[in-house]
Amino acid sequence: MDGPVILSVDAVFALACRVLETAGLAAPQAEAVARVIAAAERDGCSNHGLHRLPGCVETVRSGRLAVAAVPDVRDETPALVRVDAGYGYAPLAFERGLPLLADKARHGGVAALVVTNCFHFSALWPEVEALAAEGLAGLALTPSHAWVAPAGGNRGLLGTNPIAFGWPRPDGHPYVFDFATSAVARSDLAHYRNEGRAIPEGWGVDRNGAPTTDAQAALDGAMLTFGGHKGSALATMVELLAGALIGERTSVESMAWDEGLKLAPCHGELILAFDPAVMAGGDAAPGVARAEALFAGFAAQGARLPSQRRYAARARSLADGVAVPRALHDRIAALAG
Amino acid sequence: MDGPVILSVDAVFALACRVLETAGLAAPQAEAVARVIAAAERDGCSNHGLHRLPGCVETVRSGRLAVAAVPDVRDETPALVRVDAGYGYAPLAFERGLPLLADKARHGGVAALVVTNCFHFSALWPEVEALAAEGLAGLALTPSHAWVAPAGGNRGLLGTNPIAFGWPRPDGHPYVFDFATSAVARSDLAHYRNEGRAIPEGWGVDRNGAPTTDAQAALDGAMLTFGGHKGSALATMVELLAGALIGERTSVESMAWDEGLKLAPCHGELILAFDPAVMAGGDAAPGVARAEALFAGFAAQGARLPSQRRYAARARSLADGVAVPRALHDRIAALAG
Repeated sequence: MDGPVILSVDAVFALACRVLETAGLAAPQAEAVARVIAAAERDGCSNHGLHRLPGCVETVRSGRLAVAAVPDVRDETPALVRVDAGYGYAPLAFERGLPLLADKARHGGVAALVVTNCFHFSALWPEVEALAAEGLAGLALTPSHAWVAPAGGNRGLLGTNPIAFGWPRPDGHPYVFDFATSAVARSDLAHYRNEGRAIPEGWGVDRNGAPTTDAQAALDGAMLTFGGHKGSALATMVELLAGALIGERTSVESMAWDEGLKLAPCHGELILAFDPAVMAGGDAAPGVARAEALFAGFAAQGARLPSQRRYAARARSLADGVAVPRALHDRIAALAG
Repeated sequence: MDGPVILSVDAVFALACRVLETAGLAAPQAEAVARVIAAAERDGCSNHGLHRLPGCVETVRSGRLAVAAVPDVRDETPALVRVDAGYGYAPLAFERGLPLLADKARHGGVAALVVTNCFHFSALWPEVEALAAEGLAGLALTPSHAWVAPAGGNRGLLGTNPIAFGWPRPDGHPYVFDFATSAVARSDLAHYRNEGRAIPEGWGVDRNGAPTTDAQAALDGAMLTFGGHKGSALATMVELLAGALIGERTSVESMAWDEGLKLAPCHGELILAFDPAVMAGGDAAPGVARAEALFAGFAAQGARLPSQRRYAARARSLADGVAVPRALHDRIAALAG
């Protein structure tokens, strides 16, 4: 097989747009999703990059996603923006709600953006990075499908339920983490299965609820949360805050709604934004300095901050472009018509 | 040795009040702390109960805690209440800020209570339970002292940084969790040391940053977070949201401020409150039903909800009283003058 295809980040974006629009997605929806795909490829997160396009095309063609949905942004209270995504993808709904969310956070100190009726697309770090670019700290939560057993249980009940957090830094990239509350991502299990490797203990249980190191058995059974009962509690919190609280589906309901089609999960998302100046009583500078001192403490003992690897990949990609495996590229290009 | 002393929950409260007031703490401060102590004994959390009183007496007598501090409640924005605890204990500051926080959450959907300059006292579940009693979901965060190494590091930088969450339920007790982001509580390490037992791997490292199963070596070195890099990321988020964001000390600063006196940590606390009706767009009922369906899913697979053990202990204590080890009781009674 030939070597990878090298694409600029802009070319990744253009390719993703073409594929999505060819599948029938309206341009504003396609561009918002393509921005996330291009950002993922740029940051070395190929799991959330072009690799996702075939699945997107399936979701777009399913007839369940509203291909021309226009998010409806509602100014609900001084602290709350609600965006009905109208069964389109989440990224456009987030983009449309962001300016009002930022405005409310700057006035009130804290504000919430509730997105409803959206097809989730990949990672949450784009959301908290966008908030950090506005000088705001952010916390984002979303359910998924009920693939994960709670601590002490043995059947899927919770989603992989990611939690993402961002903190703006005066120089350079924000402090950002974004992780699944499951022990690993579902795609990790599929990866192990495809490579015929045993999974470590603690990742999943089989259909009978027995611990397993067989990836397929865990995919057929249930995944486990990270961190035992604490991770399970956090995953439950995500169901409650980004599901029940905001009038949206839990992971069990989202999975049922999917009716076995295995499309992207369709549910809600909760994003909180915090203004460091207002929250500190007027002056953000001391808090910014405190945070920088904390980060310096990581460096002093050789500990990495989350996202450092992603930012390093970003620098390389912006200089040298993104290497896309040729087989993947050809498969995607065929979808671009 | 004789058997335990059986006290009613009210008698625990009265005893704690007497000890704290004898030490010089003003009545409103003493009563707020005693309410937490009595609640902890009631719920079988003896670690946060009468056992803490000798340490409280030390903190009260240290001259660093303002024994007659009156919390200053400020209505900062439609979404933000700030309470300057004035170097008193946290519980009174929280109690004084709670009505305005609840009011703001009911109007705006989400609101924040920032408590500054407070000596932390024990658990965070009383805060989120109090919010749940108001029909509100709540999230509470606070730093502590820098006893915990970040993932990839080997020296104390982060606090044990608890996260507590509460969700109101229509019948019976709320869904509540409250856990340290460290692998275990610091008191667990002391307990193992006192009993001469080896600690499991993953709880701590020694002074040189090497993994250890020696409790004293971990106490002298650093604790580790739960859940590897994910727990470390959450502990860092607590430093940022409940420290830097709100203009308050991080765990490193709080520890430095203590100057080796080993008093209660003095720093800030962040409490978020969410109104389920406003956040859901007007009607809380469907979300309440969704949450109950989720909890039923736990029961159906034999998984316990967090706090179930605590609520069971509560029922027993309210019926039969609290059993206090006689040696502890006598030591406390001596402090009551």
